[in-house]
Amino acid sequence: MASSSLSAALVTKLEAAQIASRALATLTTAQKNQALAAIADVIDANHSAILAANALDIEAGESSGMAEGLLDRLRFTPERLTSLANAVRDVISLPDPVGVVVRGNDMPNGIHLSQVRVPFGVVGAIYEARPNVTVDIAALCIKSGNASVLRGGSAAENTNTVTVSLIQKALVSAGLPAEAVQSIDELGREGATQLMAARGYVDVLIPRGSANLINAVVLESKVPVIETGAGVVHLVIDESADLAQAVEIAHNSKVQRPSVCNALETLIVVDSIAEEALPPILSRLADAGVTLKGDARTREIFPTIGLATDEDYATEHMALEMSVKVVSDLDEAIAHIRRFSTKHTESILTNNVAQADKFLAEVDAAVVMVNASTRFTDGGEFGFGAEVGISTQKLHARGPMGLPELTSTKWLVRGSGQIRH
Amino acid sequence: MASSSLSAALVTKLEAAQIASRALATLTTAQKNQALAAIADVIDANHSAILAANALDIEAGESSGMAEGLLDRLRFTPERLTSLANAVRDVISLPDPVGVVVRGNDMPNGIHLSQVRVPFGVVGAIYEARPNVTVDIAALCIKSGNASVLRGGSAAENTNTVTVSLIQKALVSAGLPAEAVQSIDELGREGATQLMAARGYVDVLIPRGSANLINAVVLESKVPVIETGAGVVHLVIDESADLAQAVEIAHNSKVQRPSVCNALETLIVVDSIAEEALPPILSRLADAGVTLKGDARTREIFPTIGLATDEDYATEHMALEMSVKVVSDLDEAIAHIRRFSTKHTESILTNNVAQADKFLAEVDAAVVMVNASTRFTDGGEFGFGAEVGISTQKLHARGPMGLPELTSTKWLVRGSGQIRH
Repeated sequence: MASSSLSAALVTKLEAAQIASRALATLTTAQKNQALAAIADVIDANHSAILAANALDIEAGESSGMAEGLLDRLRFTPERLTSLANAVRDVISLPDPVGVVVRGNDMPNGIHLSQVRVPFGVVGAIYEARPNVTVDIAALCIKSGNASVLRGGSAAENTNTVTVSLIQKALVSAGLPAEAVQSIDELGREGATQLMAARGYVDVLIPRGSANLINAVVLESKVPVIETGAGVVHLVIDESADLAQAVEIAHNSKVQRPSVCNALETLIVVDSIAEEALPPILSRLADAGVTLKGDARTREIFPTIGLATDEDYATEHMALEMSVKVVSDLDEAIAHIRRFSTKHTESILTNNVAQADKFLAEVDAAVVMVNASTRFTDGGEFGFGAEVGISTQKLHARGPMGLPELTSTKWLVRGSGQIRH
Repeated sequence: MASSSLSAALVTKLEAAQIASRALATLTTAQKNQALAAIADVIDANHSAILAANALDIEAGESSGMAEGLLDRLRFTPERLTSLANAVRDVISLPDPVGVVVRGNDMPNGIHLSQVRVPFGVVGAIYEARPNVTVDIAALCIKSGNASVLRGGSAAENTNTVTVSLIQKALVSAGLPAEAVQSIDELGREGATQLMAARGYVDVLIPRGSANLINAVVLESKVPVIETGAGVVHLVIDESADLAQAVEIAHNSKVQRPSVCNALETLIVVDSIAEEALPPILSRLADAGVTLKGDARTREIFPTIGLATDEDYATEHMALEMSVKVVSDLDEAIAHIRRFSTKHTESILTNNVAQADKFLAEVDAAVVMVNASTRFTDGGEFGFGAEVGISTQKLHARGPMGLPELTSTKWLVRGSGQIRH
């Protein structure tokens, strides 16, 4: 069943991951929680080793001219390590998804049928210079009973090497196989390429990072992928919207945390309310430091901003930049969203029930909202406790993913000698 | 968002499918059922046209030397057309999956959160010379609110052309867009290749047919695939099995319908019961016309059969052929299954609770059984009414798939002006 043409070094690790995954699949929740506690403790107890390795990666990044934003993602501090250990402890308190009965019934012939959650088996992760992802993915995979094979990128290789080695030490101390969490960073770029080809060894692959990285993995991978994509997020201000709410929600959606995928990218305003709504909404955003661009009609009403192009409307800025568009009616708003949306989060502000229902029914996105900030698309806000990511694909999981989305299912059929007639 | 380098002819059809999918997504169940009734009626009323087109395909198949088994799958008869129309009517009585609330709750800040089933959008299907699949997939997609784009293979092209044209006539008569069901057979093999590349146009691709076809689509497709794979199905006879049941269940699993994916391919018997169990089980199978091959130990006990190779153990025969193996204990049985299983259906016969639990926990397959015939892995037997196929992948759907597996989900967030703090 497994792919050929993988390097012997990778196959050795993947076979070890498969064996470890079998052990993980039948652990009790208590055993998994004990391993998580050991990982949190080992991080707490080894700040100096982790920070020393991280300093090497930061130094290499600086001397190769890495941008400050990337350096910041790469950098560990004592505070960040404490948060990281506590994030692992948070996973302990989450419900174990494995073994949960999803549905079931007794068949007319007396057979007992149940569908239960089981781990995927081996989860691959390909990500970029964010060494915290190493610990996050490892912890979420352990709790969901999956072995993980991590390719964290060369920029964080020193940090990841130390972190994975500490995680493995903790796993062994808790009676789990060390190979439950492995890094393949030492195999370089070729390791990532081969991981995407490792059908039969890897059950699901999770890319984390830039749109370019995710897109490359989605297109190249022969292993099934869970895609956590970009958010070109829209907020529509309908004629009947509450204007005071519109000012606050537009501001919150864009400004509260502009660097994340649920932040607003394009404001769409229906023409009949544009002259009244745009000045207070856009002034509030401009005051908060947001660089605005709009179409011709927007600039008639609010002339101090630049002209938005189709490229602007298609961009996930992840920064204090935003596009604005005036539309004649809700149909035009939905058509604009259909053209530029990445199907992540779309929101409308309206007090008209028919318009709200139309928007909820016709807009195709992971999360569709009425009268709420786009920032609510979040595993924590949805009550999942932790978030594995926000899926923008339609298969398997859509929207914020919790631990159950890191599992598959298995049907159990318990009979007493039945044959089929 | 959509892929480039697709032919203009295909893009025209896919864009039409997208537009049709939007109409389908918001139809009521009654409207969809009306369209299904019209399709069943149009099949009933046009036997002669369908059979005439089918005769051309059969003739071409015969003169190109197509095997009788394939010709039989390709062949329509008046009885088969009546069954096909009735299968469409059966879909009418199935619950509509669209709009079903999967989960939901009120958030602490007063936001109402619900996750509802929505259609995928555009479903692609690539299959081989079985013209009934055209009608099956079209009907299941209509009921689940999806537009379908069908590539049915050149061998059935005349039949599919007539069938799709009749379906479209029925759709229009029921007020649905004709483009809700389209064939791309006229684009030839290149059409299938491009369909697999049509990310952004096609939401999910379903291959149906031989293992070779499915494997090629899984490896080549850039569009997410639902894989309905082969079944190398095992039945383990444990020491504590009821022998009379074992004879009946082995026979039923292998013989009741040997050409399907849930039919038994390898019988595994624990050595301590082998001398007692093998003669009655294998005699019953041999009497039913099953050609048996076994390992050395099996042939010591039942000498009249051939020697099984690893290739035999890896083969899905789909015919009255079967392999047999004697193992020392359950661990060896599970190891054999791990090596050769396609993770479809695995069953054990045992009266020992610990052995049953071990098998259910440790065997990784879509369906794992105790004391039941492997033939029960079936959408109808599971109470789904209709079966979309049996998924052997771990993402999205695993095991028999019903109509809900042809849908995605969407989160609806209904607020009253909430912002995130």
